[in-house]
Amino acid sequence: MIFNQYFYHPDLLNPLVTLSAEESEHCCRALRHREGDEVLLTDGRGREAAAVVVTANPKACVLEIREVREDVGTRPLQLHVAIAPTKNADRIEWFVEKGVEIGVEAITFLICDHSERPRVNLERLRRVAVSALKQCQTTWLPTMEVCSFQDFMEQQREWVADRYIAWCDDHNQRQFAAERFSTDRVILLIGPEGDFSEKEIAAARNAGYKEVKLGNRRLRTETAGVYGCTVVATKTLNT
Amino acid sequence: MIFNQYFYHPDLLNPLVTLSAEESEHCCRALRHREGDEVLLTDGRGREAAAVVVTANPKACVLEIREVREDVGTRPLQLHVAIAPTKNADRIEWFVEKGVEIGVEAITFLICDHSERPRVNLERLRRVAVSALKQCQTTWLPTMEVCSFQDFMEQQREWVADRYIAWCDDHNQRQFAAERFSTDRVILLIGPEGDFSEKEIAAARNAGYKEVKLGNRRLRTETAGVYGCTVVATKTLNT
Repeated sequence: MIFNQYFYHPDLLNPLVTLSAEESEHCCRALRHREGDEVLLTDGRGREAAAVVVTANPKACVLEIREVREDVGTRPLQLHVAIAPTKNADRIEWFVEKGVEIGVEAITFLICDHSERPRVNLERLRRVAVSALKQCQTTWLPTMEVCSFQDFMEQQREWVADRYIAWCDDHNQRQFAAERFSTDRVILLIGPEGDFSEKEIAAARNAGYKEVKLGNRRLRTETAGVYGCTVVATKTLNT
Repeated sequence: MIFNQYFYHPDLLNPLVTLSAEESEHCCRALRHREGDEVLLTDGRGREAAAVVVTANPKACVLEIREVREDVGTRPLQLHVAIAPTKNADRIEWFVEKGVEIGVEAITFLICDHSERPRVNLERLRRVAVSALKQCQTTWLPTMEVCSFQDFMEQQREWVADRYIAWCDDHNQRQFAAERFSTDRVILLIGPEGDFSEKEIAAARNAGYKEVKLGNRRLRTETAGVYGCTVVATKTLNT
C-alpha cells in the first residue's frame, strides 16, 4: 500500500506556492517527486489542496494549486487541552504527536504551581506537530502556546465551553469518559506529576471547571493527555 | 504530593522476599528506604503486598511480607492486543508503557506479511512494562510474546472472546468505540504501517474477527494500540 503524505504550507490561497526548504527536500529528494506529479497539501487550518509540481527544486519546490477544499476533517466538537509540560521533553513531544493524530484543536502548555518544567521549546513542538499532520493526513494543526495557570483561567473566561480539570482525588468520582458535552468546545486541564495545587483546583472550581477522573488508574501526564484526546475522538465519530 | 511506587517481585507468597539487584538499588539507594520502612509490592498477577524492610541492602534488599491482597485492580473486561511491532523500537516501547498504564492484560507482537520488524527485544519490553507497572501502581503486568499472524489465529481459536481486526478500508464503517462486548475478553488486532495483507484479513474474517475502524483518522500503529486500550478502559469504569 503506497502511503500518501500531505505536504504542508501555511498559505494555500495563491495560484503558486513555494515549499519551505524542509518540505522541498522531503518532496523532491526523499519522495522524488518530479514536474507534473500530483501532490496533496494542507495548511493546517482545515484546507486541503490538490497541486501539481511545477519546479522540482529540492531547495525551493514550486507547486501549482489546482483545487482547494475548505473545512476538511473539521470536527463538530473541538478540544483544547491545557497540559503541564513534562520534565522529560520526549514525553511532551509524544503527547503533541499523538494529540495531532487522534485529534486536538488547541494545546496550551500550562505552567502550574507544581510544574517540573518552566520552559517549553515551542518551535520544536510545532515541527513535531507538522510532521504528525503530514504523516497522518490530518488537516488541522493545533494552535500551541505557553501560559500560566492563572492567565489561562483568565483567557478562557468568556468562552462557551464544557470545562474540565483532571486530577486525582478519592472523593472525585466523575469520569471524563461518561460526560455528555453540551457545547461544541471542550477544555481539559491536565496537571503535572505533582498534581494541581489546592489553590489551582479552587480557582478552577470557581471558574466552572468540573473535576473529573481519567479512568481508574494513575496515568502519567502525557498519557492522560492522550487518554483525553481519545475520549473526545470517540464522541466525534460522525465526522 | 509524595508519590508511592510499587516494588516488583514475581513471587509474593513467601514470608520473606529478596528484591532483584535492580529493585534493591531502587529501593535502598534511589528511594533511601531503611529497615522498618513500610513499602508496597506487586507481583504483576493482581497481588498487592504490604511489606517491611528487614535488610536495607542496595544489592539484595530483604522484605518481610505482612499482608497480601489478591485480585487487586482485576478488570472485568480483559484486553488482548495483538500488534505488529514497529520499525522504530521506541514506538513499540511507548505502546507497551502506555498500554500498561491504561490497561492491557496481554500483548502479542504479531509478525505479519507486511511487517517492518521481524525481531522484538522481549526482555527490554518486559523491563519497560515492569517500570510502568511500578510507576503507575498497576497490579497486572501483561503477558507478552511474539507470534506469527497464522499461529496467533490458531492459538486463539478455542477462546471465547469478542474479536476485532482494525484496518483501514473505505467500506469498513464499524467503529471499535461503538461496539458492545458480549464476553469478558476482547482481542484486538492492529497491523503494520503497510496494513494487513488480503490473505490475513480473509483469515481473520473467517475466524470471526469483526473489521473495525479506530476513529476516523489514520493512526500510526502504536497510536492505534493506545487508542484501543483507552476505548476498553472507558468500558471498564466500574472496576
